Amino acid sequence: MLFDILDLLGTITFAVSGVLTALHKRLDSFGIFIIAFVTAVGGGTLRDVLIGNTPVGWMLELRYIYAISIAVVIALLFRNYLKHLRTSLFLFDTLGLGIFTIIGIEKGLEVGLHPIICIILGTISACFGGVSRDILCAEIPIIFRKEIYATACILGGLFFLGFSELHIPKNILYLSTASVIIVIRILAVKYKLSLPSFYKNTPTSS
Amino acid sequence: MLFDILDLLGTITFAVSGVLTALHKRLDSFGIFIIAFVTAVGGGTLRDVLIGNTPVGWMLELRYIYAISIAVVIALLFRNYLKHLRTSLFLFDTLGLGIFTIIGIEKGLEVGLHPIICIILGTISACFGGVSRDILCAEIPIIFRKEIYATACILGGLFFLGFSELHIPKNILYLSTASVIIVIRILAVKYKLSLPSFYKNTPTSS
Amino acid sequence: MLFDILDLLGTITFAVSGVLTALHKRLDSFGIFIIAFVTAVGGGTLRDVLIGNTPVGWMLELRYIYAISIAVVIALLFRNYLKHLRTSLFLFDTLGLGIFTIIGIEKGLEVGLHPIICIILGTISACFGGVSRDILCAEIPIIFRKEIYATACILGGLFFLGFSELHIPKNILYLSTASVIIVIRILAVKYKLSLPSFYKNTPTSS
Repeated sequence: MLFDILDLLGTITFAVSGVLTALHKRLDSFGIFIIAFVTAVGGGTLRDVLIGNTPVGWMLELRYIYAISIAVVIALLFRNYLKHLRTSLFLFDTLGLGIFTIIGIEKGLEVGLHPIICIILGTISACFGGVSRDILCAEIPIIFRKEIYATACILGGLFFLGFSELHIPKNILYLSTASVIIVIRILAVKYKLSLPSFYKNTPTSS
Repeated sequence: MLFDILDLLGTITFAVSGVLTALHKRLDSFGIFIIAFVTAVGGGTLRDVLIGNTPVGWMLELRYIYAISIAVVIALLFRNYLKHLRTSLFLFDTLGLGIFTIIGIEKGLEVGLHPIICIILGTISACFGGVSRDILCAEIPIIFRKEIYATACILGGLFFLGFSELHIPKNILYLSTASVIIVIRILAVKYKLSLPSFYKNTPTSS
Repeated sequence: MLFDILDLLGTITFAVSGVLTALHKRLDSFGIFIIAFVTAVGGGTLRDVLIGNTPVGWMLELRYIYAISIAVVIALLFRNYLKHLRTSLFLFDTLGLGIFTIIGIEKGLEVGLHPIICIILGTISACFGGVSRDILCAEIPIIFRKEIYATACILGGLFFLGFSELHIPKNILYLSTASVIIVIRILAVKYKLSLPSFYKNTPTSS
């Protein structure tokens, strides 16, 4: 139940992040909808295709289409209140990241995959929508920009698997894992944390 | 029967549109074949993967490979007669668009998906080959350029579903739907129709 | 048995080629791992998805993850000994190419696909990891650069199918096919062999 709500919430936040990116790129109304759609369902679609869960999730229940459509309309109506697009985009993207990581892990556990594979699957579910959005919008994928991104999903995944040994109620486990991912990501951006680099501090060669 | 003929015809027209794009990009003979192949089977492949129809269609029947190969050879032989590449490319791309939309919808209905999902599936089938072609050729995907493109598929899909209620013979329904899509697309380009925009008429910021 | 060893060896060589490309692009440590992972499993993943072999191969056995992780660590430790990155990258990429072509063909034969389709499947398995690597790193896909690349896979595939009629022991057939692909690719680069072109020797128009 909470699981379904989180799934819809993740879909909505990613759809809004897609609208904001598309507005920034000045796409027309249909382009905005496509980007919102791809961002919202891209990660879950790749997840379902990889584990053979077809037809993929959003094809079997109309609520995803409805949620995305409503999110697009609302985001467009309130676009002037979302003025500081970059900050809003970051927040919506981060919320979706936390939610889709746990959903991906859960789906992997359901089909009996090894926990390590489930963490990778959760990370793919969470990151691929945003990667598709950025490729279609000709931006460098957010996953490769400086701050910790997919790493937050992996750390959250380790947290999830570690604490699931303790038989905490699922709902609390879901919410706390999503919170861990969101907090790590926000702290990383706020304090400009990044992973160690292998290069001297010279200008890039490419 | 007509369905199979249309499927092959769509494959051929998309293959030719791939050849024309690849010639424009001055790829070598193998690059031309790859682009033709990806353009022709890309949309149907994604469609089959999403609904779990695997191995995907072109793997089970050699006629797709033969059709693409013959289309590539003929397009290369007559490339001087296709001088006005941009116009030819547009016409072949548009024919494939109309045909693959109805095939995608039909495949979705076959596996029992909701009509709204079928329209989306038809649109994906029709558009993804061209999107792949454009990404591999480092062009901005045609779907995001100004004129109505995927919107034509969606309008055609609505026409298809509306008229299928009337129990018109399938063959007539197929041909008329494809015609609707092709006509909308041609009119959109001829009269430079585009969707309403959310931006003042200022230069783009990105 | 030899098959499994070759599969792991191909995974390792492609992972190393991913590390070298990522180092060249100065990605951080996590970006390096992602690129290594995508390069190593990308081709096999697409192969498995296309034939409906899901969950895809690397999800069912941890050895792929271990092999990639170890390859990444070793490649990073010895990165100064791999100074001439371009040459090393070429050699590792070519080894993976030969190995993954035969694995792809074999998997296609296993599910009863036509030999021509198997050659295409082998070529896709071998090439898609590198294509993904190059797209994520914003390089022109190596498959479209001048020298013979995917063509080597196709010629190797024809060799494989031709000689498999002779009932040579599988192990010898595997090794000789991989060698044929690797030798063709090395000769093509060394002697700058390329496919015939359709263009006069004028500067490119795009």
